[in-house]
Amino acid sequence: MIDLSLIGIGTGNPDHLTRQAIRALNAADLILIPHKGDGKADLADLRRSIVAEVVTNPATRIVTFDLPVRDAATADYRRRVEDWHDAIAALWASEIAAHLGATGRVALLVWGDPSLYDSTLRIAARLRPAPQVTVVPGITSIQALTAAHAIPLNEINGPVMITTGRRLRDDGFPPGTDTCVVMLDGECSFQSLPPDGLEIWWAGFAGMPEQITERGPLAEAGPRILERRAAARAEHGWIMDIYLLRRTAQA
Amino acid sequence: MIDLSLIGIGTGNPDHLTRQAIRALNAADLILIPHKGDGKADLADLRRSIVAEVVTNPATRIVTFDLPVRDAATADYRRRVEDWHDAIAALWASEIAAHLGATGRVALLVWGDPSLYDSTLRIAARLRPAPQVTVVPGITSIQALTAAHAIPLNEINGPVMITTGRRLRDDGFPPGTDTCVVMLDGECSFQSLPPDGLEIWWAGFAGMPEQITERGPLAEAGPRILERRAAARAEHGWIMDIYLLRRTAQA
Repeated sequence: MIDLSLIGIGTGNPDHLTRQAIRALNAADLILIPHKGDGKADLADLRRSIVAEVVTNPATRIVTFDLPVRDAATADYRRRVEDWHDAIAALWASEIAAHLGATGRVALLVWGDPSLYDSTLRIAARLRPAPQVTVVPGITSIQALTAAHAIPLNEINGPVMITTGRRLRDDGFPPGTDTCVVMLDGECSFQSLPPDGLEIWWAGFAGMPEQITERGPLAEAGPRILERRAAARAEHGWIMDIYLLRRTAQA
Repeated sequence: MIDLSLIGIGTGNPDHLTRQAIRALNAADLILIPHKGDGKADLADLRRSIVAEVVTNPATRIVTFDLPVRDAATADYRRRVEDWHDAIAALWASEIAAHLGATGRVALLVWGDPSLYDSTLRIAARLRPAPQVTVVPGITSIQALTAAHAIPLNEINGPVMITTGRRLRDDGFPPGTDTCVVMLDGECSFQSLPPDGLEIWWAGFAGMPEQITERGPLAEAGPRILERRAAARAEHGWIMDIYLLRRTAQA
């Protein structure tokens, strides 16, 4: 039987690791670290440095494997992602078979928390025989964003929508709430909204040493964000950002 | 100048503490622990045991203070809460003045994360002169819930609404999403929904040693949850619970 721990590591600050995460990493026989290519955005170096810093169990093996690439020949997006997840699951299975056989404890380090816009749980569900899956929660970029600004996520007893850049572009500000958090947005999709009556709290590299923030009425802060985001992306070669939009009382 | 750290401690498992939280607690000159009364739900014992376990700095003073009670004579709910927050801020200020004077580092342990359905940031905003506020993110009960069930929060690229029991009762299943997380619900408000086509993932004491879970189609799992929640509440004298509702494809 394989025990598979999916360990949330927070958003790039090794100090986001919980004691539970450190314990789970040290309990692993095998830690699998995906490597996506030479870009910085695959975070393999960050994962390796976290492991180097907190894993003290000499019996834990650390194995890096190359992630497959999505097959651009597959026209359908959903199909392409499904095939890609199948391929990753097959790679995990072969690494596990090679290093552990049929029994042992495997750990994967998941950016943020395994529940939030992450495919690790869905890939794990493909493994046969099914492993015993344990999730160790981690700090998400939503918490890193609100911590960076020292703001509450919700208004008093108010609801909050977590959504994506695509949704914001396609459907506008979400219904039924005055607060939304936008993730997976490579296009500063707040530009698609009429800015009046909206306030934005933005962070690039939320929680990381490179963290940058902007806040203010969307009409004023929006152009500043576009500029800082482009500059930071040019400087670091990649960027990860997130923002909260709130309807203000005056709107 | 007062530095005030609001430290997310996760949901009752001391292993939810991050390295950042442990560091911030040990950097504090003064840790304030609120005490609400003799019920278990004030979690003062849990906070004290966390501090006892991780604070090794002998210079850190630990001070417990009695929380004021809300004035039942104030009819307006919003006014009652505002007055209560004013009273708590005044208590913090007098404890800080008594133990530190005008300079030093103060820490408060916040259940979950300071951004989510928590009033600590709003109370801190009342302090004069304004302290330098730092937020240390913590694991929320949402992450404890999804970890307990080893499920993703969102459907692939789908939005998620975080809402309250009252909202669910008043407005029904939230618009613009197939997934919602319900918090602050003392009344199992899922009972107000037509259960067809809804799946529920529920946890009591999510992340704590007492954790209990139920899942399934709402029509079947709902009654089981009512029963287990009542039994657990009777056993422990209090309960804290949270759940995720998802519209299923068949609906």
